[in-house]
Amino acid sequence: MKIAGTPYRTIWRADAAVEIIDQTSLPHGFVTRRLATMEDAAHAIRSMQVRGAPLIGATAAYGLCLALERDPDSLEAAYKTLLATRPTAVNLRWALDDMARVLRPLAGARRIEAAWKRAAESCDEDVALCESIGRHGLKLIEQVKHRPVNILTHCNAGWLACVDWGTALAPIYMAHDAGIPVHVWVDETRPRNQGAYLTSWELKSHGVPHTVIVDNAGGHLMQRGQVDMVIVGTDRVTANGDVANKIGTYLKALAAKDNDVPFFVALPGPTIDWTMDDGRDIEIEERAPEEVTRIAGVQVVPEGVKAANPGFDVTPARLVTALITERGVCPASREGLLSLYPEQRAKARA
Amino acid sequence: MKIAGTPYRTIWRADAAVEIIDQTSLPHGFVTRRLATMEDAAHAIRSMQVRGAPLIGATAAYGLCLALERDPDSLEAAYKTLLATRPTAVNLRWALDDMARVLRPLAGARRIEAAWKRAAESCDEDVALCESIGRHGLKLIEQVKHRPVNILTHCNAGWLACVDWGTALAPIYMAHDAGIPVHVWVDETRPRNQGAYLTSWELKSHGVPHTVIVDNAGGHLMQRGQVDMVIVGTDRVTANGDVANKIGTYLKALAAKDNDVPFFVALPGPTIDWTMDDGRDIEIEERAPEEVTRIAGVQVVPEGVKAANPGFDVTPARLVTALITERGVCPASREGLLSLYPEQRAKARA
Repeated sequence: MKIAGTPYRTIWRADAAVEIIDQTSLPHGFVTRRLATMEDAAHAIRSMQVRGAPLIGATAAYGLCLALERDPDSLEAAYKTLLATRPTAVNLRWALDDMARVLRPLAGARRIEAAWKRAAESCDEDVALCESIGRHGLKLIEQVKHRPVNILTHCNAGWLACVDWGTALAPIYMAHDAGIPVHVWVDETRPRNQGAYLTSWELKSHGVPHTVIVDNAGGHLMQRGQVDMVIVGTDRVTANGDVANKIGTYLKALAAKDNDVPFFVALPGPTIDWTMDDGRDIEIEERAPEEVTRIAGVQVVPEGVKAANPGFDVTPARLVTALITERGVCPASREGLLSLYPEQRAKARA
Repeated sequence: MKIAGTPYRTIWRADAAVEIIDQTSLPHGFVTRRLATMEDAAHAIRSMQVRGAPLIGATAAYGLCLALERDPDSLEAAYKTLLATRPTAVNLRWALDDMARVLRPLAGARRIEAAWKRAAESCDEDVALCESIGRHGLKLIEQVKHRPVNILTHCNAGWLACVDWGTALAPIYMAHDAGIPVHVWVDETRPRNQGAYLTSWELKSHGVPHTVIVDNAGGHLMQRGQVDMVIVGTDRVTANGDVANKIGTYLKALAAKDNDVPFFVALPGPTIDWTMDDGRDIEIEERAPEEVTRIAGVQVVPEGVKAANPGFDVTPARLVTALITERGVCPASREGLLSLYPEQRAKARA
């Protein structure tokens, strides 16, 4: 996507290093950052300079490249370090496994160039997946009669969460570009405000009309008929269609169901965890309490007061109208997913 | 309740003026403020130096006293000004009507003393109502087997929202004082953070164990069995049991229903709007967008981005397990309410 007229991706190779957009500097500053070592990449993931399931995967893949540049025999150690950076996004493991599958058969020195090649391919594939998600999601937006089409989204599942295009926002960008009047309700998404900071920045940069709301407001807007559809991204979809996503997604899904508002989840295939039967057992990352107790550096609770900070929740498949994938739209169910990914039938049954 | 050992109410007479705890200074400072004129009282309500449905009513009653002190013939003008300060809380109108009923028959000069007398009585009555709500709610907490009893609350319906005791928090204080181990999940309650600022300050001051969470987190905690009950306050309950309360309450009620967690609403009789059949038509205050776009003085969205800021939502009676009033606990329904307030049967039928 373009920033002030210049096309960008969220991550790219720069000689023997990698560059990223530092998302912790947004929306007030636009800063790119050079990752020279595997530890830089791990830190970028942990500190959420990069975030979003697909981009976490891409950064981990490039992290392996950086490790191998230093030491061609460090594959297994780097794999472990990178895998431990964030627990919930399944794309992280997927991207690392994909790299390892290509690299393990190769002798030490030959791994380096193969790693860079595969990481770059993987990024290109992610862009293609997102573009395809956008095309399938666009058809759902086209079906809405109301003008403008009011779409609510939670957190950031835009191009900043991926390599380009985004998942949940890809259909919105395509609808906007196709001349369909759209308006996006952007949940601010406490505690890290990815909606207020990132989604509104993306939408503003692209010129898509939108309004920021607190996370508390979406239910009320649905009750009053001001939301035509919800589209969110996801960090992991289990084999039965349960959806792990940013904390608070579940509440919006409940409100959508209660008000007959279609609730869509956009995802690329690698976000599906075929090894998990349902979402009840997904490990939910517990993040630092300071993300809750301090906002923009200001203490917002009395001194000494405790906070809890679960980063994600699980929306049961029964609340999801449909999944939007690069292969098409399907019901959020085992059979729905297998209809699009029949090659996984054996794995899902295991 | 006590602050550092000294018993306080949220509002009290001081000669020909009124003093309040300035709630916009909490939790980091404790400031009392002198209201010398009716306009001071109106400003205190508008700017949320005082907030909470019962306390808004008490402040409006004292606002009339201040107006009459200056001009004994200013009753009707002051009534209008004060009524327009906040649109959603029904206690505001109730308190003003109660005062007007007493004062209208009296000649100008005699009104002054009668006004002070009635406002003080009204405060004492509010304290008695809250204490009684506490006693009835305590029985519900006593029925929970799990220890500690995990109670989730939204916004602030503690003693800071009333004259003393609180509504939703009164049963919690009584349970704690009775030696029942309780733990409170405190929704931070964006955009004004009344949970993080006020509820956590109250609970800390009284020594009640609690943990602050973002508004997004409650559903997840319920899914994982970490909430035994929800108790919230309300700004207006319609004759059928629909509940207007701080924006986001509806989302928590949906999650409670979805997880079989009892959802209770605590309220004094004056919060019931017998003239409204249901909550669909309640006017929802749209507050300033800056409450969303700036947190603690810091801009959290890109420059020029719009925000919407509805202050309340309506939780349909079907999601409410029971109402806790000063007269006892009843189903959230027309018949439930009339069983406790049979004298309203004629009004509710009209």
